[in-house]
Amino acid sequence: MNSAAVMDLASSPHAMVLPVPPGGVEVAEGFWADRMRVMRTHGLERQFEQCELTGRLRNFERAAGRLEDEFEGRYYNDSDVYKWLEAASYALARAPSAALKARVDGVIESVAAAQRPDGYINTYFSGSRTSWRYRNLTDEHELYCMGHLIQAGVAHRRSTGVDRLFEVVVRVADHICATFGPESRPEPDGHPGIELALVELARETGNPAYLRQAVFFLDQRGADPPNLSGLHYHQDHAPVREQCDADGHSVRLTYLAAAMADAAIDTGEAELLEASVRLWESAYERRAYVTGGLGSRYQGEAFGADYELPNDRAYAETCAAVGGIFWNARLLAATGDARYADWLETALYNGALVGVSPDGGAYFYANPLAADPQPTPDDQQGLHSSGAQQTVGGHQRQPWYDTACCPPNIARLLLSLPGYAYGVSAGALWVHQYVPGRVEAVLPDGDSMTLRIATRYPWDGDVELVVEDAPDGPVELRLRIPSWADGASLEVEETREPVEPGLYAIIQRVWSAGATVRLRLPMDVRLVASHPRVQANTGRAAISRGPLIYCIEAADHPESNVDALVLGPDSNLRARVEPDLLGGLTTIRGSAGVAVQNRSDELYARFDGAKPRLTGSTALTAIPYFAWANRAPGAMRVWIPYVDG
Amino acid sequence: MNSAAVMDLASSPHAMVLPVPPGGVEVAEGFWADRMRVMRTHGLERQFEQCELTGRLRNFERAAGRLEDEFEGRYYNDSDVYKWLEAASYALARAPSAALKARVDGVIESVAAAQRPDGYINTYFSGSRTSWRYRNLTDEHELYCMGHLIQAGVAHRRSTGVDRLFEVVVRVADHICATFGPESRPEPDGHPGIELALVELARETGNPAYLRQAVFFLDQRGADPPNLSGLHYHQDHAPVREQCDADGHSVRLTYLAAAMADAAIDTGEAELLEASVRLWESAYERRAYVTGGLGSRYQGEAFGADYELPNDRAYAETCAAVGGIFWNARLLAATGDARYADWLETALYNGALVGVSPDGGAYFYANPLAADPQPTPDDQQGLHSSGAQQTVGGHQRQPWYDTACCPPNIARLLLSLPGYAYGVSAGALWVHQYVPGRVEAVLPDGDSMTLRIATRYPWDGDVELVVEDAPDGPVELRLRIPSWADGASLEVEETREPVEPGLYAIIQRVWSAGATVRLRLPMDVRLVASHPRVQANTGRAAISRGPLIYCIEAADHPESNVDALVLGPDSNLRARVEPDLLGGLTTIRGSAGVAVQNRSDELYARFDGAKPRLTGSTALTAIPYFAWANRAPGAMRVWIPYVDG
Repeated sequence: MNSAAVMDLASSPHAMVLPVPPGGVEVAEGFWADRMRVMRTHGLERQFEQCELTGRLRNFERAAGRLEDEFEGRYYNDSDVYKWLEAASYALARAPSAALKARVDGVIESVAAAQRPDGYINTYFSGSRTSWRYRNLTDEHELYCMGHLIQAGVAHRRSTGVDRLFEVVVRVADHICATFGPESRPEPDGHPGIELALVELARETGNPAYLRQAVFFLDQRGADPPNLSGLHYHQDHAPVREQCDADGHSVRLTYLAAAMADAAIDTGEAELLEASVRLWESAYERRAYVTGGLGSRYQGEAFGADYELPNDRAYAETCAAVGGIFWNARLLAATGDARYADWLETALYNGALVGVSPDGGAYFYANPLAADPQPTPDDQQGLHSSGAQQTVGGHQRQPWYDTACCPPNIARLLLSLPGYAYGVSAGALWVHQYVPGRVEAVLPDGDSMTLRIATRYPWDGDVELVVEDAPDGPVELRLRIPSWADGASLEVEETREPVEPGLYAIIQRVWSAGATVRLRLPMDVRLVASHPRVQANTGRAAISRGPLIYCIEAADHPESNVDALVLGPDSNLRARVEPDLLGGLTTIRGSAGVAVQNRSDELYARFDGAKPRLTGSTALTAIPYFAWANRAPGAMRVWIPYVDG
Repeated sequence: MNSAAVMDLASSPHAMVLPVPPGGVEVAEGFWADRMRVMRTHGLERQFEQCELTGRLRNFERAAGRLEDEFEGRYYNDSDVYKWLEAASYALARAPSAALKARVDGVIESVAAAQRPDGYINTYFSGSRTSWRYRNLTDEHELYCMGHLIQAGVAHRRSTGVDRLFEVVVRVADHICATFGPESRPEPDGHPGIELALVELARETGNPAYLRQAVFFLDQRGADPPNLSGLHYHQDHAPVREQCDADGHSVRLTYLAAAMADAAIDTGEAELLEASVRLWESAYERRAYVTGGLGSRYQGEAFGADYELPNDRAYAETCAAVGGIFWNARLLAATGDARYADWLETALYNGALVGVSPDGGAYFYANPLAADPQPTPDDQQGLHSSGAQQTVGGHQRQPWYDTACCPPNIARLLLSLPGYAYGVSAGALWVHQYVPGRVEAVLPDGDSMTLRIATRYPWDGDVELVVEDAPDGPVELRLRIPSWADGASLEVEETREPVEPGLYAIIQRVWSAGATVRLRLPMDVRLVASHPRVQANTGRAAISRGPLIYCIEAADHPESNVDALVLGPDSNLRARVEPDLLGGLTTIRGSAGVAVQNRSDELYARFDGAKPRLTGSTALTAIPYFAWANRAPGAMRVWIPYVDG
């Protein structure tokens, strides 16, 4: 109980690294404990209020026949309630709260009441619209919504030990298996999600039918003639096992490719895993933002071409960063390759975390890497997503969205985060992410090992791991050395161990209580360059430190246009701890050149050299990207022009 | 007759410069004569075939009850036939062709037969769909289509002196005036176009009711509650007189703002003209591509924010460049300000001309300023335009489009081009564009003046203007000095006259036959820079010469990736006449550095300086932007990285 694993791979024959369930992970005070607490005590409450306010909860009452009036909102709104339930379940597992439990139980009762006798549930396709069920799998998200319900049911059971919601979701899953299959209906859902849910339900129930159903859905894409639209948007242009490029709707792709890896962990199908890896290489080696954001285009909320990574028009939906974390976690479990843990970390600290304000109650949907305060109208002609509407009046956080997928997605991620930090494999304990606290891990052979971790990461790079308990025999401790950590050092009881950035450092020992491992990750300020084919970043650098990407924001530069600030060899960038800024941050301070704004303000003029001409210099303050847009609205830049000396 | 003016401002009280009708303009052999002939003899024929092939012509037979089967294509397809009729009418005015005349007359008979007794015409909203008429002005383009018909009818009458089509369009216009107005229906069309048409019909008929109707439609946007969608997409977010920023769908905006200026020329309403100028400043001073292309976003085919000008994802629809030319021509007529003639020239030689192949039979819809051969799927989720589909498989010219607005738009522009070259005002003859040939202009006082113009422009900058006939009294000759023409010189009979780029040079004389004016526009190769806020162009230059913007294309660089080519102080760029290349071009040759491609091929790496590192140099060939994509498919760049020495 209280283990609330997102993935329970204890019985998955092809897993390489099994996540340590969050029940075995304590998170001590620090970066993530703060954020989890805020989400638990404040963010979940705000989201619940919004679900009430917008009729999302009343829709269940209506579907149950307890209210007479009309469905409110969009036909996929149930999914937000389910994601909230999942997040709230994780919260209950970590910190009992009678008030939250009452809320959760109330919502579960509404959901159960809204379920149809045959197991189907969707509050829009109810009442007079019952006959519309499954009329349009391509667009209408019914299986997607039920997938989120299944994930919530699994999470609730694992978190509380109570089966009430779980019984509902098993009926949902049985209904789906009875309705879709080789002998019945062939369509998958236009929005993936059900596949991940069914894989996990198979693990929770031990019933392989759900796994088979997930693989069936995966393989229904790219049929000829198409089961859906045949479009890249739905990843329906080719069979998933043959897909090579991360194309189409970015959130859809992350959920789909995560499910491909997830299913492969249980089925052992190399083809599915290889295709997921191929798509990952396309997404993260050629199409990802430096923040771990995915999705270069507003149109179709889609991936762009290789190296098409505009900053101002980055879509980089919060859900895509979160979906990318789910995907990386599954590929990490399937392969043990540190590159997945690296990108997971990048997305976590930057592209996902930027999606929520420090108080847990204001959100971003799209996450550009450059913003200006001017309004940039973005009518949503015919698109059913609403990610773009926020740019009217400048890019600002919102308490909710009409399409509200992102807020509860970041909530369920944050509240299940401890489950992403550690893994075990035969004779090995893996530390993927550096979070202060304690882990009690049960190795596959049944032995357990307990570590205490002390660190101020990501603000500081020193990580001390102290063995509290260990098996009698040797255990490998595998510590991820982030790919950015050139110059990292590792000592075990005064002995220096070799490390290589981008790999796990492996220390095999017979461990005794009190043994201490000291990892030092360099926290120098690093400038990052893009591949030269990223046209948007020619001549620009991004500031980073540890796992954090930084940005410059107008609020810190009242005297200068952030657009005119230029880095150079004399910028002398230094970290500064600022405990009173936005809940406590380490900023990066230095000096920037100030470029001459075009002499004539002409849009095009005679070229007179590539270097910006400088009028002088000014103080520069960079803050972590995740922290922007929490003060006065204003311009922001991640990629900053750099002038060589 | 044979005067085919697009704008006939002879009776427009507030015109500053009246276009010289094309009937008074001879175009001698050269750049435009070639292109007009190809369009007349080949392009129009290909477009007619496509109208037949795709059922666009059969739809008229169906609406007339002469065919029983179903409407083919999209509900706005009539407009393509009308634009073809307009273009073909201009062609008949310039060069009689019995075959073309027969085609035109045949189409006119079909159109006349399809017209309903009350004057309405739309082949989609006919037969069983008759009751759907005007059910959705926001989206269904009925007035837009009829606007194109009216423009065709006016053009046909002015070109041929025959009233057959004109009678049809007067009935159309009377029907519209009877149906929409302050006492009847308030909606304008979601796609502007009818307004321009009604203004010109008022001029042709002398009936001010059509002008009033145009102004009525202009003022129906931005109502509260909205008559249309209230969206920027339809420029329905604010009353047109209050609009400040060029927002929303770019083609719609150019047609709308052109009509605002056009109506103001006849009504004298300063408010309408000022709003059009304000929108122009937004569009051309902060949101236009260096090619004169407009529209930074695929989504909504829309303008972007100020300085949001991505190259690879430039939408820059051919129709928006053409619409921009219509707009500039009207603001030029209203104000006499050379900036409009300058941007008209830029759009003409670059952003519009790129939309058609040298043989007049293959077209571009979207016009990026950087392209790569990889496929970049761009599903059109819910958008009714089809501009983006072409990017599947790389950006290539197409013989036609499902939404085929661009091909006949470029045809009608090219075939009416002589009407954009000259103007008259009291005591003055204006030369807006430099085209070899002859102009016989009637000044407002009735006197006439004839000039012969000899030039190889745009390949060469020498323009000789010889007076053939002139009034007895003094006449100002006003010659536009393009804003790029630093170092231009002007001589009249051995006397040097002052010139200033970006203004009209004014030479007042009593002219006698044989008087010769020699204008020398410098044709040095110029590098162009963007405003520093255009993030996509940091550290890059564009190559230009005269009015032409150049690009580098893979076809000329088989040994190097065009992405790796870098300009610098030693590039030594020189023009070279190449009579055998793509129908005869002046290319620009020089040497380019070749940048090291990322050492590791990593998407993000440690920054090691802003300057690309060079491995060596290679020969560089730039061709005019308008000429790209006529050889093997491959990469293209307008903006090229530049490394200072």
